[in-house]
Amino acid sequence: MQIACLDLEGVLVPEIWINVARKTGIDALLATTRDVPDYDVLMTRRLRILDEHGLKIGDIEEVIESLGPLEGAAEFLDWLRSEFQVVILSDTFYEFAKPLMRQLGWPALFCHRLGIAPDGRVEAYHLRMPDQKREAVKRFHELKFQVIAAGDSYNDISMLAEADRGILFRPPQNVVDEFPQFPVATDYAGLREAFLEARADLE
Amino acid sequence: MQIACLDLEGVLVPEIWINVARKTGIDALLATTRDVPDYDVLMTRRLRILDEHGLKIGDIEEVIESLGPLEGAAEFLDWLRSEFQVVILSDTFYEFAKPLMRQLGWPALFCHRLGIAPDGRVEAYHLRMPDQKREAVKRFHELKFQVIAAGDSYNDISMLAEADRGILFRPPQNVVDEFPQFPVATDYAGLREAFLEARADLE
Repeated sequence: MQIACLDLEGVLVPEIWINVARKTGIDALLATTRDVPDYDVLMTRRLRILDEHGLKIGDIEEVIESLGPLEGAAEFLDWLRSEFQVVILSDTFYEFAKPLMRQLGWPALFCHRLGIAPDGRVEAYHLRMPDQKREAVKRFHELKFQVIAAGDSYNDISMLAEADRGILFRPPQNVVDEFPQFPVATDYAGLREAFLEARADLE
Repeated sequence: MQIACLDLEGVLVPEIWINVARKTGIDALLATTRDVPDYDVLMTRRLRILDEHGLKIGDIEEVIESLGPLEGAAEFLDWLRSEFQVVILSDTFYEFAKPLMRQLGWPALFCHRLGIAPDGRVEAYHLRMPDQKREAVKRFHELKFQVIAAGDSYNDISMLAEADRGILFRPPQNVVDEFPQFPVATDYAGLREAFLEARADLE
């Protein structure tokens, strides 16, 4: 019995912060952990920037809703759910993901949450637990499931390594070079194949 | 951050074995754990009966597909998934549940599986682990989720007790009498209310 664990951004939907930056024209939101390695410093800065521009949660949700899932993502996810039990493991926040989850038919999502003030200001962020992707895979193993996981970047590697089989989807070249043990898929047809091969391999 | 755990049969879909018995006219399949308390004896007998009647997995899937979810279940589940992360915890088998899961938009389901021979004969059943509903709630707690669970009968009680809040949905009177600590909902509007009250209570 198998669970498929999927990363969200870069696998089913666009990178959220970068695209909010582009759509709103706020260049300061383009910074990522590559520019500001301390996640807490980065997030605190992002929330301050939203505040300075008077962006409330409703405004951001509208921008995110307009992004939509990646082309072909909804069809891929429907196929995956017909073959496996699917849980999405993401380091985004429920409030940001919700408009996209609706467009994907409400798959189960384990992520983090924001603190929203009564007036809609985004005033805090709450990480559910450290290394939550890997921890979830461990717990699924304890529940006697095999796990096949797919993700696109560094923050997925501990999940892929903990899973019975890991798959990289459209990863940057440095991730491919550094983790040659994981097969690479570059489109949804290839990702389907990789899941079916992983399952055949496990059975 | 909260996960809603739902029992399947009696909450979202009809009781599967009883309805397969009715639709096929095979009265011997009407027996339940009330008649045959040893689950292994009961299941072994059920599989023998299917075999004696030449019923293969495809035939049974067709019967189950024709049952459909309970009236209003799909709408309730869509609402629940827009408010909570939902995982269905059931003691049925994936092969039986699949035609109903399709009609419910593929929610995540943790249950057990059958052993199917190449010719479609149902030749075995495999329980994933003992007391899997309660074990799943424990693991969600370890992943720092609060859990609100709803079920209709004895085999849900350990799940309801382990959850932060438990709700009974259309339970038999003896279950209501024996477990007065759980609120009771008798329709989907009431079940919505009970989930919202449980959440308000936890926050």
